Amino acid sequence: MHDTAPAAKAATWLAGFSKALSEGDVEAVLAGFLDDCYWRDFLAFTWNIKTLEGKPAIAAMLESQLAEVGPSDWKVTQASGSDTVEAWFTFTTATGAGSGIFRLEHGKCRTILTSLQSLAGHEEPVGRNRPLGVRHGADRNRTTWSERRAAEEAAFTQGSDPYCLIIGGGQGGIMLGARLKQLGVPTVIVEKNARAGDSWRNRYRSLVLHDPVWYDHLPYIHFPANWPVFTPKDKMGDWLEMYVKVMELTYWGSTECVSARFDEGARRWTVNLRRDGAPVTLRPTQLVFATGAYGPPRIVPLKDQESFAGEIIHSSQYSDGSVFAGRKVAVIGAASSAHDVAVDLWEAGADVTMIQRSPTTVVRSDTLMEMAFDIYSEDAVERGLDVDRADLLAAATPFALQPAIQRELYDRIRARDAGFYEQLAARGFLLDFGPDESGLMMKAYRTGSGYYIDVGASQLIIDGEIRIKSGVEIDRLKPGGIRFTDGSEIEADAIVQSTGYQSMHEVIGGIVSREVGERIGTCWGLGSGTRNDPGPWHGELRNMYKPVAQENLWIHGGNLALSRFFSKFLALQIKARMEQIPTPVYAPQLN
Amino acid sequence: MHDTAPAAKAATWLAGFSKALSEGDVEAVLAGFLDDCYWRDFLAFTWNIKTLEGKPAIAAMLESQLAEVGPSDWKVTQASGSDTVEAWFTFTTATGAGSGIFRLEHGKCRTILTSLQSLAGHEEPVGRNRPLGVRHGADRNRTTWSERRAAEEAAFTQGSDPYCLIIGGGQGGIMLGARLKQLGVPTVIVEKNARAGDSWRNRYRSLVLHDPVWYDHLPYIHFPANWPVFTPKDKMGDWLEMYVKVMELTYWGSTECVSARFDEGARRWTVNLRRDGAPVTLRPTQLVFATGAYGPPRIVPLKDQESFAGEIIHSSQYSDGSVFAGRKVAVIGAASSAHDVAVDLWEAGADVTMIQRSPTTVVRSDTLMEMAFDIYSEDAVERGLDVDRADLLAAATPFALQPAIQRELYDRIRARDAGFYEQLAARGFLLDFGPDESGLMMKAYRTGSGYYIDVGASQLIIDGEIRIKSGVEIDRLKPGGIRFTDGSEIEADAIVQSTGYQSMHEVIGGIVSREVGERIGTCWGLGSGTRNDPGPWHGELRNMYKPVAQENLWIHGGNLALSRFFSKFLALQIKARMEQIPTPVYAPQLN
Repeated sequence: MHDTAPAAKAATWLAGFSKALSEGDVEAVLAGFLDDCYWRDFLAFTWNIKTLEGKPAIAAMLESQLAEVGPSDWKVTQASGSDTVEAWFTFTTATGAGSGIFRLEHGKCRTILTSLQSLAGHEEPVGRNRPLGVRHGADRNRTTWSERRAAEEAAFTQGSDPYCLIIGGGQGGIMLGARLKQLGVPTVIVEKNARAGDSWRNRYRSLVLHDPVWYDHLPYIHFPANWPVFTPKDKMGDWLEMYVKVMELTYWGSTECVSARFDEGARRWTVNLRRDGAPVTLRPTQLVFATGAYGPPRIVPLKDQESFAGEIIHSSQYSDGSVFAGRKVAVIGAASSAHDVAVDLWEAGADVTMIQRSPTTVVRSDTLMEMAFDIYSEDAVERGLDVDRADLLAAATPFALQPAIQRELYDRIRARDAGFYEQLAARGFLLDFGPDESGLMMKAYRTGSGYYIDVGASQLIIDGEIRIKSGVEIDRLKPGGIRFTDGSEIEADAIVQSTGYQSMHEVIGGIVSREVGERIGTCWGLGSGTRNDPGPWHGELRNMYKPVAQENLWIHGGNLALSRFFSKFLALQIKARMEQIPTPVYAPQLN
Repeated sequence: MHDTAPAAKAATWLAGFSKALSEGDVEAVLAGFLDDCYWRDFLAFTWNIKTLEGKPAIAAMLESQLAEVGPSDWKVTQASGSDTVEAWFTFTTATGAGSGIFRLEHGKCRTILTSLQSLAGHEEPVGRNRPLGVRHGADRNRTTWSERRAAEEAAFTQGSDPYCLIIGGGQGGIMLGARLKQLGVPTVIVEKNARAGDSWRNRYRSLVLHDPVWYDHLPYIHFPANWPVFTPKDKMGDWLEMYVKVMELTYWGSTECVSARFDEGARRWTVNLRRDGAPVTLRPTQLVFATGAYGPPRIVPLKDQESFAGEIIHSSQYSDGSVFAGRKVAVIGAASSAHDVAVDLWEAGADVTMIQRSPTTVVRSDTLMEMAFDIYSEDAVERGLDVDRADLLAAATPFALQPAIQRELYDRIRARDAGFYEQLAARGFLLDFGPDESGLMMKAYRTGSGYYIDVGASQLIIDGEIRIKSGVEIDRLKPGGIRFTDGSEIEADAIVQSTGYQSMHEVIGGIVSREVGERIGTCWGLGSGTRNDPGPWHGELRNMYKPVAQENLWIHGGNLALSRFFSKFLALQIKARMEQIPTPVYAPQLN
């Protein structure tokens, strides 16, 4: 039997909320919230990606935005629970249609998510609104689909400027490009590699995604039911290449972005590209950096590096372990890439030592699948929770509330896999679960580093096949090895720095200007005040997918899941600006 | 409220049916059927595609097959209706799992469809059974996905023989190849064109599919929500090419099949191919002809043809109207290709006369969308009827019962578009709705010819822009035109024969032998005893997707929808033989 009680509770609350909003009565709105409350908004109220924490923050936002937003037509579409009621709803604003999720505790709102889903009059042409594909009737001036596509592709090489230029044609740029295409925003994606998908193909031989297929879908065309749980890198490369083709994206491979300058008067960028080696200039209105979740490789300076006899490469340059067969290789770092590279080296017959400089959060893949991917799974699909709904559900919990939930999860994970962790520690491997014991996902959001989903490396470490050197700093290099500050030494014929990446604002600094890069500041991270994620608390991913301290510049990236979800909201922001729809950004402090 | 009455009625009937079957009591089975009853079976009972019409036919089939089939575990999964109850069900047999639909009238069965859906122990690796994509754990003998794919592709060029060879890499061959791949049947698809999709790309410039997107999905990867209703030919070409890539099919372009011979002793074929001009021999066990729903072009001999000054081509050779600009072109024929070619010529600026030799069934595209595609539509999707369920639902009505249903539909269509038909007739266009007024779809099944879904040509005919010459035979050609048997003449600089195709057994005759081609006999058609579909009544598409009068030879084809649906059952037949699962074919008379 469908339980109507939660729906009634939800409808009652929403009716009061709606009435208070329509009357502009902020006091009455706040009366419906608990003191410890959160309002997360994606564009609908703030034209920003913003979590308002507590009643004063919510009040300030509403005072600033409510009149212009003009929300109405609130409807509960689904509700469940009893003491705590979770309800899905839809609404409209002056500019479009929205949806969201709120959670009531004993009748008052603890959290609410509001998201703009489409712009009125600019809805995506999908489903019932899909294009017809043919103009019925005879037409002596008919242009065919292939002729239109060819013209579209040719335009940008013949002096026509795209409204939007996306730098970086990996998964982030591609998904954003697909969303913009559907919204009718003329867009060019530029990518330094030759073909779409090369950013995956060029990685090390054994790379396979660590996230499962249900979490990795691209928008519009989901992976089919026969797709493997963990996608091999080259298969992902082929899928991205296919996707670019069938989604009809304008994608310039072998194209590097040399420099970009914003003309304040013309409100446009001048972007200098090098396409197949030849200079090309485009003047887009909007510029998106989708060059990866992180910036350029971080290379750790090593003392007496010039004395080292072998090669030193960064993990981003590592592709094939076979050249290291029979050699001693030191891998500096102990996060995901370090583990993957170490296994790849071991498989190729190298003698591998992993130099761990700080503790790592490790979780077994099977454990994570079973305990942490419940809303992205075959089970979820069977109970009707598709990936788009799962994304909204995941977003309904603000970042501030996630550590407590994650701590509870990691308590269970540590209990379940206690033996595994003991064995790892016995080999000298330094484990942690984050500064507040909140585990892998919070590390991913805070710094994007310091964790590994174990798909095999840990057993090699436990078995002593991959050696661990930890708890001591590198002093200096020697011709045949590395000396540590405690006087110990290891032999090494080659060094792979799996030391991560710099912040993305360094990329912007290089292409636009150092001044703009610094004005924007650090990208990614929440401002949690934990290691490498300094405060103040920001409550959303810094500078990602939303307005930054440089007009008409946007930063996009993250894993497949984040790129999928946030590309929607970034595309809506760009489309709204193209259509000159008012987008009053609520940003009491800049990102 | 969900109505439980039909479910109860359905369950009661199915329980009786199931009990009678399990007791081998054919009399008791028949007692549950009306006298005018139909049992359509796809493999589950007959290892054939077969409709048993009436109690004696059902009894004979059960006497022959029931003991070996061993059906059990019958369950109603969904039911609706009151006087007439329609119920979906599942069951298992000794070899696999099945599903079907029955319809009761006043408690007795009018029609039942039983279909084998999977082979026990050989289920497709999808959903929960999808491959993991990575062998977790370290492995010094690891082969990566791309290495395995490359080895798979290389094997067949290095002496390894596929179990199945598919001749023809259009939609039919591709979809069958995808099903076989999922079932683990080593398969090579050979295609004379260079790239997958070329069979669409090479058609005339303005070609757009006449069937809507909801009817056209390929298995596994459905068209996305932004896909146009009517797919332009080149876009379809790109989709097929992408599909071949991501479904990991072994697809040899630029490869022609020269000859094939079955070795009765070795139970294998020797197939001589010409790949990129070089001879290659493969020895597959199973050989599939997927060279198109029809055979080679049918060229009508024209008297005094050598005297004609201009060119004479078949519509299959027609691609670009621009060479005919300003010229007088006669199009012989008045079915789909003739109409499309005539419009393309008119758009290119030619002066077009269509020579209609026999009446045509014309239906306006909009009308057809609205009245005939209810189960393949956005509405259907919204009420949860996806394409696979729609296919099964469509199959639940045996061919014998379709003319009556179609006549009723066409009565409504003719009433609705009466003005349109009057205007067409006023131009001399000869209309019909089939020998029994059953309209377009029955013509498609009976002969695959003689109809046109109007997407614009008819208005050009009504407006006199495309002229019609009808009701009279061609006498002979003259240097500058055509003379008819009534003495009238028209001028023509070129002639396009849109005169259809020969039966597919002519292709088989050319590649295997005339003797085998004739032993197999006509392909397609139902044996309706109407024009070009001589009896006796067969009740299914002759020789399509099922055993024919030559072992280890199969014929596959049809539009996207038929290729999609029947490729599943053809793939299961081939897989069962590969696994040496007993497949007792029930075929009281040969096809």
